[in-house]
Amino acid sequence: MKVTLGISNRHVHLTEETYKILFNNEPLEKVKDLKQPGQFASNKFVTLINDDRKIEKVRVLGPLRNYNQVEISRTDSYHLKLNPPIKSSGDLKDALPITLVGSQGIAYLENACIIANRHIHLTKEDLEKYNLQNKSCVKIKVMGEKGGILDNVYLKVQENSSLELHLDSDDGNAFNLKTGDKLEVIDTE
Amino acid sequence: MKVTLGISNRHVHLTEETYKILFNNEPLEKVKDLKQPGQFASNKFVTLINDDRKIEKVRVLGPLRNYNQVEISRTDSYHLKLNPPIKSSGDLKDALPITLVGSQGIAYLENACIIANRHIHLTKEDLEKYNLQNKSCVKIKVMGEKGGILDNVYLKVQENSSLELHLDSDDGNAFNLKTGDKLEVIDTE
Repeated sequence: MKVTLGISNRHVHLTEETYKILFNNEPLEKVKDLKQPGQFASNKFVTLINDDRKIEKVRVLGPLRNYNQVEISRTDSYHLKLNPPIKSSGDLKDALPITLVGSQGIAYLENACIIANRHIHLTKEDLEKYNLQNKSCVKIKVMGEKGGILDNVYLKVQENSSLELHLDSDDGNAFNLKTGDKLEVIDTE
Repeated sequence: MKVTLGISNRHVHLTEETYKILFNNEPLEKVKDLKQPGQFASNKFVTLINDDRKIEKVRVLGPLRNYNQVEISRTDSYHLKLNPPIKSSGDLKDALPITLVGSQGIAYLENACIIANRHIHLTKEDLEKYNLQNKSCVKIKVMGEKGGILDNVYLKVQENSSLELHLDSDDGNAFNLKTGDKLEVIDTE
């Protein structure tokens, strides 16, 4: 079984309420569809702030959600002097506070910053097709000079999803990978 | 067999000639000994430049060598818009040109920029002790949520060396590791 890789750079998901604080009446416009159905890269960017540290030009993904979530890499976390937990998207237990600056305002989010875990988007039909019904995780094998194996790649089963492996930029860069690479799924122990 | 990890942040090694261009008569002073005998973090920093891109505050390691070498990560390489080869330290075939700015001058190095490969510093005695005489590479197993296996970890045998695994900051951050971590060496296939 092979999956296509999408490398996730740092990004944010916002609620309507937070979006309004940050961008007021400016419309959230689609710049590019993402591979996951309905998801898109928007025309809006925020600055992430923690104490005296910041990261600029962090993209807002659309559509708006019912939670705020800021996904950064371990590399970003050192720069921001934060130590967020490694979590599944939407699981904000223990997520850290962070401040966002938009073109029209500032929002302090008490419970938003995570490092996203390694995961594969797939459907129930994919689970059956690839005989993964009993698994919550798989491993990914990477060939090449910077190759190896990535453990704890979670299976994220959703009805309307496109088969895709999501790794953050640290994993992508350590293994010398690019979005679009086809990688081999190997079994869990 | 376990090895202690040292994470290498971006750094440069310089010849006496290049050092003189960049720092003139300023002395190269030791700030901190590194684990490898004789090697040290110095008090000198350079800026790396490629076209309109730069990375500031990159440390010069001492002592001076008989070659110039700039070691960066894949993450750094995207920032600098460079695509250096993955190489062993000192193997500068295909190394890329890069410009260095010191406090007293600028040097254009035609053949200097690499991404260092994963490697373990050890002695001939270590090779025997751990029964690795026939190996040029091993693998490293990492536990934890961001665990997995790193392939192609080269054995760098030198007479006067201290047993230590060197990974760059991309590998370190992808696997959620810190300098001083003890990691398991597993066999090559």
